[in-house]
Amino acid sequence: MYSFQSDYLEGCAPAILEELIKANSRQSEGYGLDEYCAEAGELIKKAIGRDDADVHFIPGGTPCNILAISSALRPHEAVIAASTGHISVHETGAIEATGHKVIELDSKDGKVNPLDVIRVCEEHGDEHMVKPRMLFVSNPTELGTIYTLKEVKLLREICNRYGLYFYLDGARLANALAYAGNDLSLEDIADIFDVFYIGGTKNGALLGEALVIVNDELKPEFRYQIKQKGQMLAKGRIMGINFRTLFTNDLYLDLAKHANKTAAALKYVFGALNVREYVDSPTNQIFVILDDRVIDKLHENYGFLVWRKYDENRSICRFVTSWNTREEAILEFAQDLREALK
Amino acid sequence: MYSFQSDYLEGCAPAILEELIKANSRQSEGYGLDEYCAEAGELIKKAIGRDDADVHFIPGGTPCNILAISSALRPHEAVIAASTGHISVHETGAIEATGHKVIELDSKDGKVNPLDVIRVCEEHGDEHMVKPRMLFVSNPTELGTIYTLKEVKLLREICNRYGLYFYLDGARLANALAYAGNDLSLEDIADIFDVFYIGGTKNGALLGEALVIVNDELKPEFRYQIKQKGQMLAKGRIMGINFRTLFTNDLYLDLAKHANKTAAALKYVFGALNVREYVDSPTNQIFVILDDRVIDKLHENYGFLVWRKYDENRSICRFVTSWNTREEAILEFAQDLREALK
Amino acid sequence: MYSFQSDYLEGCAPAILEELIKANSRQSEGYGLDEYCAEAGELIKKAIGRDDADVHFIPGGTPCNILAISSALRPHEAVIAASTGHISVHETGAIEATGHKVIELDSKDGKVNPLDVIRVCEEHGDEHMVKPRMLFVSNPTELGTIYTLKEVKLLREICNRYGLYFYLDGARLANALAYAGNDLSLEDIADIFDVFYIGGTKNGALLGEALVIVNDELKPEFRYQIKQKGQMLAKGRIMGINFRTLFTNDLYLDLAKHANKTAAALKYVFGALNVREYVDSPTNQIFVILDDRVIDKLHENYGFLVWRKYDENRSICRFVTSWNTREEAILEFAQDLREALK
Amino acid sequence: MYSFQSDYLEGCAPAILEELIKANSRQSEGYGLDEYCAEAGELIKKAIGRDDADVHFIPGGTPCNILAISSALRPHEAVIAASTGHISVHETGAIEATGHKVIELDSKDGKVNPLDVIRVCEEHGDEHMVKPRMLFVSNPTELGTIYTLKEVKLLREICNRYGLYFYLDGARLANALAYAGNDLSLEDIADIFDVFYIGGTKNGALLGEALVIVNDELKPEFRYQIKQKGQMLAKGRIMGINFRTLFTNDLYLDLAKHANKTAAALKYVFGALNVREYVDSPTNQIFVILDDRVIDKLHENYGFLVWRKYDENRSICRFVTSWNTREEAILEFAQDLREALK
Repeated sequence: MYSFQSDYLEGCAPAILEELIKANSRQSEGYGLDEYCAEAGELIKKAIGRDDADVHFIPGGTPCNILAISSALRPHEAVIAASTGHISVHETGAIEATGHKVIELDSKDGKVNPLDVIRVCEEHGDEHMVKPRMLFVSNPTELGTIYTLKEVKLLREICNRYGLYFYLDGARLANALAYAGNDLSLEDIADIFDVFYIGGTKNGALLGEALVIVNDELKPEFRYQIKQKGQMLAKGRIMGINFRTLFTNDLYLDLAKHANKTAAALKYVFGALNVREYVDSPTNQIFVILDDRVIDKLHENYGFLVWRKYDENRSICRFVTSWNTREEAILEFAQDLREALK
Repeated sequence: MYSFQSDYLEGCAPAILEELIKANSRQSEGYGLDEYCAEAGELIKKAIGRDDADVHFIPGGTPCNILAISSALRPHEAVIAASTGHISVHETGAIEATGHKVIELDSKDGKVNPLDVIRVCEEHGDEHMVKPRMLFVSNPTELGTIYTLKEVKLLREICNRYGLYFYLDGARLANALAYAGNDLSLEDIADIFDVFYIGGTKNGALLGEALVIVNDELKPEFRYQIKQKGQMLAKGRIMGINFRTLFTNDLYLDLAKHANKTAAALKYVFGALNVREYVDSPTNQIFVILDDRVIDKLHENYGFLVWRKYDENRSICRFVTSWNTREEAILEFAQDLREALK
Repeated sequence: MYSFQSDYLEGCAPAILEELIKANSRQSEGYGLDEYCAEAGELIKKAIGRDDADVHFIPGGTPCNILAISSALRPHEAVIAASTGHISVHETGAIEATGHKVIELDSKDGKVNPLDVIRVCEEHGDEHMVKPRMLFVSNPTELGTIYTLKEVKLLREICNRYGLYFYLDGARLANALAYAGNDLSLEDIADIFDVFYIGGTKNGALLGEALVIVNDELKPEFRYQIKQKGQMLAKGRIMGINFRTLFTNDLYLDLAKHANKTAAALKYVFGALNVREYVDSPTNQIFVILDDRVIDKLHENYGFLVWRKYDENRSICRFVTSWNTREEAILEFAQDLREALK
Repeated sequence: MYSFQSDYLEGCAPAILEELIKANSRQSEGYGLDEYCAEAGELIKKAIGRDDADVHFIPGGTPCNILAISSALRPHEAVIAASTGHISVHETGAIEATGHKVIELDSKDGKVNPLDVIRVCEEHGDEHMVKPRMLFVSNPTELGTIYTLKEVKLLREICNRYGLYFYLDGARLANALAYAGNDLSLEDIADIFDVFYIGGTKNGALLGEALVIVNDELKPEFRYQIKQKGQMLAKGRIMGINFRTLFTNDLYLDLAKHANKTAAALKYVFGALNVREYVDSPTNQIFVILDDRVIDKLHENYGFLVWRKYDENRSICRFVTSWNTREEAILEFAQDLREALK
């Protein structure tokens, strides 16, 4: 049994494990005020080219979204997101639980259409409706697609016109950065977004995401929010150790490159066997349309997500590779898929 | 200047004013525990044919929605509503402010499509998504349309299958009941819905709505919710006096009949002058498509809502009549509209 | 049966009723955007000597507190109040329901001790605790006592030192202003507090309180909060009519003077019959210590609140007079009390 | 520099680290649905003698409190806790942020006085006040003291009488269990409390606490709450591995015994040098009263918490030992303390 269910099914990259072992019996400050977090923060600030950013390490992606959004908005303000966005569907109403509406924009490929953002802002004109105040995008999106620099710049202009904060959920950001065709760098991101996070959990960390606040307005008293929302780990240093290692010698990118490479191999396999992709994803999540009969056969030996019904007899399935996906696993899968398709 | 902006632009029906004057200097209990509220509650229970219902008087429609929804749902549960529903767009995120997601279903005519309810319930299958737990409908809808008994019964069956509470926002309920073609009675409503409210503010009351809880599960400690959400008026008796009067001698229906009748006249005027309706509404809200040029001219002498752009040069406008709309106002408007259309 | 239970047991002052009747069938804008609210707002701004204040009319005192506090605080911030404060005990956790802690300071007489405020601010030093951000006082307090100008100025200085907003709950403010020994004027209040409300419901209004925002930081988008919390009455003009009348010809003060005068008579009666006061209140709430036996006898003919047990056989009772308390009622009560005490 | 600041300053017990290494590259389900969590849950259910309990692994103590409390209470309900309780002071208003009041009972030694619980329940009698619905205790308390079986049984009876859920915060529960004089077993706890958590972070785990739900009413859909509050780690298995190891061969108790033993040594040192304890704690937190001058000297070489001012020149300090405290560190500290006291 091999699983393409997601990229968080194993532990962490070996280099991280080694650092955890080394540090294990040394004392250091609690609650993220330790030297590991400090060093990791410095490495990240260097990587994004912004000395003035605030970096906080948070145990997961949903909490990053909760914290970034709920601490920025006043009670009557709302966040705009694609209908496929993680906060729209897959966080059990976590944003609404902090009191804020998520205004959903229809999306086929996971991306936000600039015209929809404009329309929503124009329609929300008085105190009988929420006030849009933040735009949420994920990159790569939940469908594996990525934004270009030009697209993100256009959205930034729209944000400026309508007074929106611009937030990036980067749960799998490394997979976008590691893609050869990508033109949106970490530095660009730090220049364009008010706040964003760089995912660790899905890219080889044991746990943790690095939440980066660039806009000065959003910085004050952020640690209060972390504590209040139950996201301040007593042993916060674990996350510091993870990110210090990830941002040393480009481990971060190398892990993502491996994931992308094995995903590309998987994509090639599907193409070669005439399995249609639902969207054209350049990163480590591949969405394909499979007969339900084929899905059943494959499920005997492989884990993967049946994302959504496509039509009567077919479903859209998601296959995810990781820093730890073995190339042989792809080869074996290719054979089993050929069998299943017969 | 005459306004068709809405049905709450004046004070209250004269009979109510008389009762307020009569009661003015008599002492009675505060916080809705007075004899007026008690009597009004009894009259409503008689009208709906349910001795066992709980009736609470609440100052407005938005608070009814806040209270009925937030007190019924656990933190992870959500309410389903039409995208045109009042809670979806016109309450400044009031439901989300209590921590709950509103799952919006696309709607053209203000009504909820049963198939959409089924689809949403089927799609929400695990703990990564909110759990749908209540279905919200308004009758008449925000577009003036109404549900038939058959439609409501079908939705009730779907609610039963998926474990949803069924809630009715009856801000203008009297206007549905007063329509000759309506086949959904107050008794039916009390049998079919778990909780609903009968609007007063938009049907001649000075203020207040009657929130009726039929399902025993939703009754306990409801007054705590009213107080906590700031909806327990010290002089709650005012609302009791309003509803006691409305439910005496069918005043409630008579006021709504007048509103419907003048709306029908308005509808006739639009039809006669070839102004197209956006939806076919049988109650006191009429939606028509007008040239922006015509709108400007009419706005010199009439108040009404420009609801939404229809296309480049036309908009959808809402005209509302009330218990107090004079028939001559319709006649004058007819002439002015003919002029404006030239 | 005559009740000293509270000052909201009747309708409204006759002058207000007359104005309601006059305006009843005139059309005006909904949601508090009408000319009555506008005029009432101007009268209040004149009375407080601040042209630049924002005045909003809100249906009750609890909602004023909810709105003023929740719209001013970020998620991790808290409000400080006396343990006897209305928000601490008598609003069913309304403030906590918006996500904010109420830090309670022990109080015997209803007033906040400046040293306690300092201590609390000093103790709350890091992100593991809430951040105190607002100081709540009521004047008169829930025990009928009042603050002097000097006391309030000292608290303001403390607020400045610790970065606290200063908020006044003036549910019965007129009763403080109408007391001859009071030295804290409406103008002082507007100079010293960031936001406060002038109570109407307990001083002869049919319903409504005037929430006054002086600090510019707290003004933006306040109407969004009002709508979201379900406090924007469609027929908001009712409150405008109430306050326009109250602030014409000093009706506001005259009503409170009558309440204070009858309270003073009641106080005299208790003193003459050797009934001890629990606190020395100069306004319209009188707290006395009575034998439980006496309480039972009095309850046969009088309504009043048994506030709290004093000891084994005695309780503290509250007697409240109003703009409508008849002097003969005091005389009759004096006789009945003498009988009961025998 | 050696720190007695807290028991979470290092990584994890070596046995746990070994298991993490072993499991590192094996695939397993995400979100806590893996075999490690399943096995750890079974071990815990065995240890508490309750097959029917639900066990959830949560990243920290504050989130356990958030989840256990907010998922059990309806909007108007409140939790009672000692004024020294973690939820009362050290969680940045986390409980209030979910909408619920924490009713604080004065406490000197960290324990809840049964009479205070009764008084509070008696005083909260109507819908103008929150409804007490849960009693929170911590064991050991935040002051290191522990409850006896008899005390907890009495509190349970009070809970039954007033309809309160009974919740135990066991952040350092092992330190109570490991104390020779303790008579409250894990089995007792599972019998008496509705829900409780067994702390891992402060007892040698890398991260994680085991939240145990015994009362059937509190079990349904708990995973929705975990997800919504951002507490469902994608790599939830890390916590499973931690707890599986802790509950194998009584590692859990052994780690706590070591902490207690070194704390007892520290206690002996203080006593021998005539340093007065603030409370008599039998577990791994020792509270002593020290001159501020002495504190400054000690701080040159030791980390520890200055908990609170005691008087003008003295403060109450907290010293905490852990599973990893070396005995030589105590000896060295003894010498340095003797020097400092000179």
